[in-house]
Amino acid sequence: MSKIKSNRLKLYDSLSRKKQVFEPLNSPNVGMYVCGPTVYGDPHLGHARPGISFDIVFRYLKHLGYKVRYVRNITDVGHLENDADHGEDKIAKKARLEQLEPMEIAQQYADSYMDSMDALNVERPSIQPRASGHIIEQMEMVTRILDSGFAYESKGSVYFDVKKYNEKHDYGKLSGRKLEDVLENTRALDGQDEKRDNADFAIWKNAAPEHIMRWNSPWGSGFPGWHMECSAMSAKYLGQKFDIHGGGMDLKFPHHESEIAQSVAANSCEPAKYWMHNNMVTIDGQKMGKSLNNFITLVEFFTGNHDFLSQAFDPMTIRFFILQAHYRSTVDFSNEALIAAEKGFEKLMKASHTLSELVAGESSDFDVKGWKEKCYLAMDDDFNTPILIAHLFDAVKVINSAKAGKMALSIDDLALLKSTFDTFVFEILGFKADAKNNDSANMSGELIEMLLKMRHKAKMNKDWASADEIRNQLIELGVNIKDTKDGAEWEI
Amino acid sequence: MSKIKSNRLKLYDSLSRKKQVFEPLNSPNVGMYVCGPTVYGDPHLGHARPGISFDIVFRYLKHLGYKVRYVRNITDVGHLENDADHGEDKIAKKARLEQLEPMEIAQQYADSYMDSMDALNVERPSIQPRASGHIIEQMEMVTRILDSGFAYESKGSVYFDVKKYNEKHDYGKLSGRKLEDVLENTRALDGQDEKRDNADFAIWKNAAPEHIMRWNSPWGSGFPGWHMECSAMSAKYLGQKFDIHGGGMDLKFPHHESEIAQSVAANSCEPAKYWMHNNMVTIDGQKMGKSLNNFITLVEFFTGNHDFLSQAFDPMTIRFFILQAHYRSTVDFSNEALIAAEKGFEKLMKASHTLSELVAGESSDFDVKGWKEKCYLAMDDDFNTPILIAHLFDAVKVINSAKAGKMALSIDDLALLKSTFDTFVFEILGFKADAKNNDSANMSGELIEMLLKMRHKAKMNKDWASADEIRNQLIELGVNIKDTKDGAEWEI
Repeated sequence: MSKIKSNRLKLYDSLSRKKQVFEPLNSPNVGMYVCGPTVYGDPHLGHARPGISFDIVFRYLKHLGYKVRYVRNITDVGHLENDADHGEDKIAKKARLEQLEPMEIAQQYADSYMDSMDALNVERPSIQPRASGHIIEQMEMVTRILDSGFAYESKGSVYFDVKKYNEKHDYGKLSGRKLEDVLENTRALDGQDEKRDNADFAIWKNAAPEHIMRWNSPWGSGFPGWHMECSAMSAKYLGQKFDIHGGGMDLKFPHHESEIAQSVAANSCEPAKYWMHNNMVTIDGQKMGKSLNNFITLVEFFTGNHDFLSQAFDPMTIRFFILQAHYRSTVDFSNEALIAAEKGFEKLMKASHTLSELVAGESSDFDVKGWKEKCYLAMDDDFNTPILIAHLFDAVKVINSAKAGKMALSIDDLALLKSTFDTFVFEILGFKADAKNNDSANMSGELIEMLLKMRHKAKMNKDWASADEIRNQLIELGVNIKDTKDGAEWEI
Repeated sequence: MSKIKSNRLKLYDSLSRKKQVFEPLNSPNVGMYVCGPTVYGDPHLGHARPGISFDIVFRYLKHLGYKVRYVRNITDVGHLENDADHGEDKIAKKARLEQLEPMEIAQQYADSYMDSMDALNVERPSIQPRASGHIIEQMEMVTRILDSGFAYESKGSVYFDVKKYNEKHDYGKLSGRKLEDVLENTRALDGQDEKRDNADFAIWKNAAPEHIMRWNSPWGSGFPGWHMECSAMSAKYLGQKFDIHGGGMDLKFPHHESEIAQSVAANSCEPAKYWMHNNMVTIDGQKMGKSLNNFITLVEFFTGNHDFLSQAFDPMTIRFFILQAHYRSTVDFSNEALIAAEKGFEKLMKASHTLSELVAGESSDFDVKGWKEKCYLAMDDDFNTPILIAHLFDAVKVINSAKAGKMALSIDDLALLKSTFDTFVFEILGFKADAKNNDSANMSGELIEMLLKMRHKAKMNKDWASADEIRNQLIELGVNIKDTKDGAEWEI
């Protein structure tokens, strides 16, 4: 344990509905499972939220010294259009529409998801298992649930017996639903005559002959129920009991509720010690999602190619926008909020650059150690990124004041400020400076400085014509020049 | 068929050992399967060769109007260190060494492979199935082979009965080996007492208790033999009989030979209509490979971080280097050859830029139509990229002569040259201009031009001091300046 930098970390556990001190089952190892995307469309802003939220958890735990195995699945089979075991498989439907092999669809959108996560600087999980690649593991778990008596076979499908489970255990403990309410609010749907009870859910679904994605099983040809994959794959790669299970709030019921029931039935233990749920991205107050058809894809944000968008937004702007809110609060999309995030992020990057050039003074006018402590306290308090960002902007003020000569920082404090600021901005919050054009941008910067010095010299020589010409030509190239008493400042 | 631009395409079929006219089974659809990497290490130059070679096939077939489903697998289980069903699983061994879950290793190196292929501008295949994700399909095929009588169970493993198969069919037809030679040259290894005959190969291997990657099967807990995955996955995604099966020449035996036998035994048909094999990358005349420990990884090439390398090489230089040879010839690595490739590629890119700025003349001194025809002939002749590149350099000469005013091109010919040149360079050969720094590079270029004009003006005013100062400062920034009679030329 001595390697762990902080053991004050608390996280909000959705199951106990309390902030809990984080104590991994087998420190310094941490197992974390997060529900990934169903790959039947391009990723949208709603996908960025869990991607970035759990990236922060992953990064901070690693920063603290934990050895984290982070598993995030790819759902490429079994997720029906309607959560109640009814309707068409989302991926097979898309394949039918596009006349492609379902796996071609899954590949295309899994790639597109990965590309967008890369753009957002979301670190890649340790393992990204696919549902279709773990059919055996799911069938074996279905068998164990049947053996435990909490499931029954019906016309080639296998259903989880919710009522029976609820007699011994608590189906609804995560989502806070009572079984009676679940029953009342579940619509009776076509084909549900296979079930003993409306609340039951499929853990294996028999496939109609025209269904493309199916496998032979002891119960006939079919495919696993959607909730099975996470139960089977988390157990395979993290063990039957692991530390953190995460996902979007909308997955609490029925998905995570059912995962708990499945694990208890098959393995006699709940899967995760802590449950974490990120809140939703809303647009006009409504959840953004493909099934609601009110989504904007991430690529549309990056290119600005959508009617709702007033401009293109850099991936780092999106990241900043999302981290400005705590992961358990909603984030409401608007152009104004994104433009504000863009400005905020630029300010942060500029301060980081300024900081690298600051010169130390004799003494300090700022308590860097106390500030550093506050940054850690924010993250230790359930990954409170908005508070952390507020602290970082306190530092931005100090940095800009120090640059203007209005504040001083001792050599030790300056070094500490620099390392702490960069650690939180780049390593923990996962921002990155626009490296894309960096080399050439440096070159351009040097050339601009060179031209501005020539302009300064021309002014000194009262050669106003040359000075103005340089200024005008630079403006024409898109370089803004601001004359200050310390010389000219510029910006592309 | 009317959509297909050319039906003169011939490819060398390794099985019949002849160039064959390409006639897909179900035109315009084409199914192509290529053996991908075993993901237990960073991809090296040897991996770039099949990646790029079959990327050319994929791109050219699509260019001709075919609808191609391209499947390239990822081997994440079952590939033993020694091809003769002996030794440790390559990925499990690496995991043991690094103390990671084998799937974590597979994920890491599959990601790293994908990143390098992206850098080389290799288009992503339509489907990238993983061996571990298709255990059921492999077990089902093993069962069919057992049913056909061409395999036998022995101590929890299942072996393909090569001798029996060879009585009816020809084991060795692809690699040109005779069974007697195979037998003579196969070493007897530990644990091989399970086999009836040394030539037999495992299609299911029982797993020792300490083996991490294993699945329950009718024959006990184990994992599929290495050759099974390609047979099972190609059939799943392309059908039992498809058009092209590709891979490195080193896979002809035993891998592809065994694939043919497995398919014939299980499905009563050979899997592919055409077999294509790329030749090897050699270093000092020896095959470059991880198992030979003489490899240079692609990232080492991109960064120059290897003792053998005199400098870093851009991914496009590597691509050009590989395409300068026909895919069926060996390519011998040397720094000199790569530096030459770098120069060649730059010349090509420069010509493409020059071409975009050429002004048409009244008539033409170059037969563009005939040249275009020759480019297609080269590609139609078994994807002969070195000949195509030679034709492209003929065009480069024309372009540079036209720029110097020594040759003319009519408006139609100029348009045809431009569209054809770009089609072959970018779409078919898959080169890309260095887009990374493009925006900023343009900015730098404009600033340099501005400074050179100021220098010119200073010279005109006989202000030699200022002129020299500009020149010296530019040189300091790494800008080379060459004064010509038409003004100053520069290069970063």
